[in-house]
Amino acid sequence: MRALVFDGQLRLRDVPEPRLAAGEAIIRPHLVGICATDVQVTRGYKGFHGIVGHEFVGVVVACADESWIGQRVVGEINVACHTCATCRRGDVTHCPERSAIGIFGRDGALAERLALPIANLHRVPASIPDEAAVFTEPLAAALEIVEQTHVRPRDRVAVVGDGKLGLLVAQVLRLTGCDLTVVGRHPERWDMLRRQGVQATQVAALREQRSFDVAVDCTGQPGGLATARQLVRPRGRLLLKSTFHGATELDLAPFVVDEITIIGSRCGPFGAALRLLERGLIETAPLITAIVPLDEAEAAFDAARGALKVLVSVPRAQNETRGPRDTQTG
Amino acid sequence: MRALVFDGQLRLRDVPEPRLAAGEAIIRPHLVGICATDVQVTRGYKGFHGIVGHEFVGVVVACADESWIGQRVVGEINVACHTCATCRRGDVTHCPERSAIGIFGRDGALAERLALPIANLHRVPASIPDEAAVFTEPLAAALEIVEQTHVRPRDRVAVVGDGKLGLLVAQVLRLTGCDLTVVGRHPERWDMLRRQGVQATQVAALREQRSFDVAVDCTGQPGGLATARQLVRPRGRLLLKSTFHGATELDLAPFVVDEITIIGSRCGPFGAALRLLERGLIETAPLITAIVPLDEAEAAFDAARGALKVLVSVPRAQNETRGPRDTQTG
Repeated sequence: MRALVFDGQLRLRDVPEPRLAAGEAIIRPHLVGICATDVQVTRGYKGFHGIVGHEFVGVVVACADESWIGQRVVGEINVACHTCATCRRGDVTHCPERSAIGIFGRDGALAERLALPIANLHRVPASIPDEAAVFTEPLAAALEIVEQTHVRPRDRVAVVGDGKLGLLVAQVLRLTGCDLTVVGRHPERWDMLRRQGVQATQVAALREQRSFDVAVDCTGQPGGLATARQLVRPRGRLLLKSTFHGATELDLAPFVVDEITIIGSRCGPFGAALRLLERGLIETAPLITAIVPLDEAEAAFDAARGALKVLVSVPRAQNETRGPRDTQTG
Repeated sequence: MRALVFDGQLRLRDVPEPRLAAGEAIIRPHLVGICATDVQVTRGYKGFHGIVGHEFVGVVVACADESWIGQRVVGEINVACHTCATCRRGDVTHCPERSAIGIFGRDGALAERLALPIANLHRVPASIPDEAAVFTEPLAAALEIVEQTHVRPRDRVAVVGDGKLGLLVAQVLRLTGCDLTVVGRHPERWDMLRRQGVQATQVAALREQRSFDVAVDCTGQPGGLATARQLVRPRGRLLLKSTFHGATELDLAPFVVDEITIIGSRCGPFGAALRLLERGLIETAPLITAIVPLDEAEAAFDAARGALKVLVSVPRAQNETRGPRDTQTG
């Protein structure tokens, strides 16, 4: 099968198809999103070599449990052992034995076939098109914020960063009723926010700083933390969604003096993300910059830097025929 | 009056007595504790020049409200405006207009007289001797942890640092019933902990790392954070009690990946601290290294580095007579 492989260099290659293992399913991805972590992987993050990509929607084409075959699914990216103390505590996304598709220890989704445990799969309701369902993974990551901390209707909240993740985080947080401001650098993206009842501004234009109850750093840049710090009030909460790479110079004393709570935030609840998509509460179409075929996925990685979401569509292999239940997309 | 003044150099000087201002009281300190922040002040922290010291117990000698005169008191160190939005929200220890006695903007307690707003004063129950009451401020700072985060009886908790603050934090946390380990470098201090039912060990001796639900950095050293980080489990909480000075190299990505919550923690509830002291639940005598007279307080600052608590006793001025209600200590 064809797959986009990183082995020090990113290239489309012919590789063997994954085999069906016990408890797993083989999925044919329809659409795969490229996110900042994927770009980081191609810069050496986690030292990963293999098939990249982890945001996907697709259809199950092989599974010992036949009830899955033909089902349209999205998949959680962390493959956990489900037996260790961490998993038993419910923290399966933190399993010390875990792999993460396309990031470490396991092949990803930018391929004609992907293997994933059934435990990771979520059926996609028919009303959610592929172009929205492919946002389930990053939307779940945005929802992790409200899993971790109680954002109240009266809270003043700042989202720092108006990139792909920032715009999803803003859409999740607006649902709480909170007083929400996105602080960004791309005024061309603010129309959507304003239409959604969310304020947007550049940080320099904010008169009152240190006044936000909650600030979320979605910049993916070391400078994002400093901006968020500048916005958050004493005893406020500062959420970090960026897994940028490498050490930063940081003076922690002001965080202690101001009793700031810093909350690291990563993968989130897929079920809730699908519910929000099904309820039509999240707009995904304005977040899509381009949809390119797998053949052009290498170039898509370059296009993804600094852009909103670039999606890769994986065409059906030439020897494939459409299955009876595989009718959601072409 | 005599006072220990830092003006680039620490020295005992004769300075004017403070005047009685509206809403304030004049206090004669009996005992004053020296803490790590005081030592930092003499190294340039906050650029403070003035009378140092902020942990005290004393007696009110002048006040417009005569009911205070002769009362034995401890005092909160943050002098707030009580009118701004931060104060109205209840966060008076974070008032942007605040001063803090002996730390910034206001003279401290290592003197024969100290002026403080009545709003900052707490009467000391008769059953608490001066040598215990003088620990109210750092004990309140230890209690701030359980104001900020819910430490559960089932939690596994590590206190990193077996200095003055670490030993108070451990004594507060043992009351929750949690599974508690102090990680330190002073085995000679561990007998007290073990007698109190608290485990103590060196970090290298801990087999299971990344297994603590909560870790509290009380080291006052940049390395303390790294140790606490090593101990805390994914999704665990890491409390910072150290306001050490200057920038540290820190890679935040692992905190995001492990979804660690970092909580800066500073001043705490005096009322609760006095209740714990009154209930006899906190041992303070083993924490006292030395009690020295004000005349020797300069040298006491040197002795305080790396030691447990050094207390300074402020003798009655020569022209003073004992007042009718000033009978708690001599």
